Amino acid sequence: MFLAGIRLICIVAMTLSVEGSAASVQARLAALRERAGLEGLDGVLLLPGPNLRYFLGVVTESYERPTLCLLSFRGPSSMLVPRLDLERVRDQLVVEDVELIPYADDEDPWRIVREMLERARLGGCTLGVEGRLPFKTFTRLVGLSPGLSLREVDELFYGLRVVKDEHEVEAHRRASRILQEALRATLREVRVGLEEREVKLLFERNAFALGAESVPFCLVQSGPNAAKPHLEPTERRIRKGDLLVLDAGVTWGGYFADVTRTVCLGEPGEEQRRVFDVVVRAQSEALRHARPGVRAEELDRAARGVIAKHGYGPYFIHRTGHGLGLEVHEEPFIREGSPTALARGMVFTVEPGIYLPGRLGVRLEDNLVVTEQGHENLTYLPKSLRVEDYQ
Amino acid sequence: MFLAGIRLICIVAMTLSVEGSAASVQARLAALRERAGLEGLDGVLLLPGPNLRYFLGVVTESYERPTLCLLSFRGPSSMLVPRLDLERVRDQLVVEDVELIPYADDEDPWRIVREMLERARLGGCTLGVEGRLPFKTFTRLVGLSPGLSLREVDELFYGLRVVKDEHEVEAHRRASRILQEALRATLREVRVGLEEREVKLLFERNAFALGAESVPFCLVQSGPNAAKPHLEPTERRIRKGDLLVLDAGVTWGGYFADVTRTVCLGEPGEEQRRVFDVVVRAQSEALRHARPGVRAEELDRAARGVIAKHGYGPYFIHRTGHGLGLEVHEEPFIREGSPTALARGMVFTVEPGIYLPGRLGVRLEDNLVVTEQGHENLTYLPKSLRVEDYQ
Repeated sequence: MFLAGIRLICIVAMTLSVEGSAASVQARLAALRERAGLEGLDGVLLLPGPNLRYFLGVVTESYERPTLCLLSFRGPSSMLVPRLDLERVRDQLVVEDVELIPYADDEDPWRIVREMLERARLGGCTLGVEGRLPFKTFTRLVGLSPGLSLREVDELFYGLRVVKDEHEVEAHRRASRILQEALRATLREVRVGLEEREVKLLFERNAFALGAESVPFCLVQSGPNAAKPHLEPTERRIRKGDLLVLDAGVTWGGYFADVTRTVCLGEPGEEQRRVFDVVVRAQSEALRHARPGVRAEELDRAARGVIAKHGYGPYFIHRTGHGLGLEVHEEPFIREGSPTALARGMVFTVEPGIYLPGRLGVRLEDNLVVTEQGHENLTYLPKSLRVEDYQ
Repeated sequence: MFLAGIRLICIVAMTLSVEGSAASVQARLAALRERAGLEGLDGVLLLPGPNLRYFLGVVTESYERPTLCLLSFRGPSSMLVPRLDLERVRDQLVVEDVELIPYADDEDPWRIVREMLERARLGGCTLGVEGRLPFKTFTRLVGLSPGLSLREVDELFYGLRVVKDEHEVEAHRRASRILQEALRATLREVRVGLEEREVKLLFERNAFALGAESVPFCLVQSGPNAAKPHLEPTERRIRKGDLLVLDAGVTWGGYFADVTRTVCLGEPGEEQRRVFDVVVRAQSEALRHARPGVRAEELDRAARGVIAKHGYGPYFIHRTGHGLGLEVHEEPFIREGSPTALARGMVFTVEPGIYLPGRLGVRLEDNLVVTEQGHENLTYLPKSLRVEDYQ
């Protein structure tokens, strides 16, 4: 039974890494070079993670062995790779003008980086880096090449990644479908007396069986625990009449889905119904604004306005949403002060919530992609307090 | 059946977070203050992750919302926490002299950090930071308090964490037991025709059912794939006569186990046997040296010497091992050039391997804790090419 289930997965997963096709990687890299040049950069340094995956098609991990890609606009580009990752990285690299430079565990990688910088003719130049570049790497680099200046250019990277192409949207769609069917399967199995942690295991099993590539998180918050929005599943047993918040993330082909539903285990009470209704209305109001040209903060105001009007303003303690892509939280952020204008191809969450400390929490989260005229809601699950409605 | 299995887990997991007892956290924090003072630091900045967990008992995630703890030796200490994580963090904090400072999504956290720095009387002072501090945070901090100087002090942090106390060793022991029983259960189910990815799913299911807190990785490499030591499981189907390398990590109570075994699916050929025997001998030779006072690099030389003597020197392409703790790779590193003298309470892996490109790979990995007289090997699984020997 289990093996039959996982056989299915592999069919779904055969065409992974949609985002890494040679043509799209080359186009992205060209766009990066162009934008970086316009901003006066002489090169860009990429680390293992979403940017290396997006701009070069390479998925690898760094751990404590330095791995970095030096894209130079003044000389040859190269990538430092631990010897034991060389074959894996070479198999993925579709760009021909980036030379792979392996090093063994008994070699000093920084001596090699110094040579890479020299050959790339970056002495005294300005290098664009990711904001998450470790301080240790920064001090090393500046020590190797004293005239070198580093500039954090996350806006540039996120700016290029924020609009998804058709392949990327399709990956989001698939991730979303897997996530929703896994939520549905889990809600079929949930019952009073289970521990929150047990529900998480049920969800993970269901998500993998349905073809998830990874299940980076699954929050399961019952009763008063739901008033703490980031609380990990505990040993608390679900009681009759509890509200249960399920907030899970899965990836497919590298891209995220992130969906939340809130249900009641039993007959909901009056306060539970009231709060739930306000959240449903707040979410609808935000969704109504989701179309090209609208500023992200307007969606936040729309949701917040509904919640405040019903007297729950102080209990909506987070922003209304965040972008999705190769990271679970990226641009555009749907919050006050975010002037980003929505554009076709942006993918993000809309997830208002109300949290009454010691009592209950309610959150509903959908994933949207902005279309030419408005948006497509990737989330088709019902919004209902009744568990039975998800069957 | 499944639910019965996961019920068991929760009994095992009830006493999680052994490392976070109030007394041990206070002792660790006192040691940190003392050592940092001796090194001329005026304060220390900690981020969510292993150091915040070890020195303050707080497990939280940062994502893109800044979370940081400012330990000052010149004024009051405080911790910046996103509003929606406040309750969770407060529930964990056992130290009284660190004030929690929450902020909402529409507030500027950096304005608050500026005030925290001022109140902590750290203007113009030197702050010890983790090497993984994001470059973006570094530039922000220096921008807020121009006289502030940051110094990377990973050696200090790792130096305090490298010797494990009895509770920590017990957590490693439990993690190791769970991992080994999950490997054993998986080897019982492995057969020719399964995909590598399917074996990974089997392992994850087994590990969670046996009480793993998390399963951060599981490498499954068959036939020629085993010659790429970091390759993630692929859709390759295991063939008769393949060598299969299983290298998995699980945590319990935050602490890692990381074990590798290599088996043959069928009757091993002559080259497979020969390479396996050399790796077994190389590992034994390294283990023979594992006792207090011996330098870490001597274990590496011992393993490497055996492999070189048999003509496979160029095919042992990584170090012999790494420390284990709240991170999967930490001090002590077992490699050439590492002068660290082993001491009672250090926990690390010994994992020589031989990789013949396009043909096969063999690796064996045990986890040790150094004792008063020698070491305790936490790994009790057999070392055999015959799958049947693991039943």
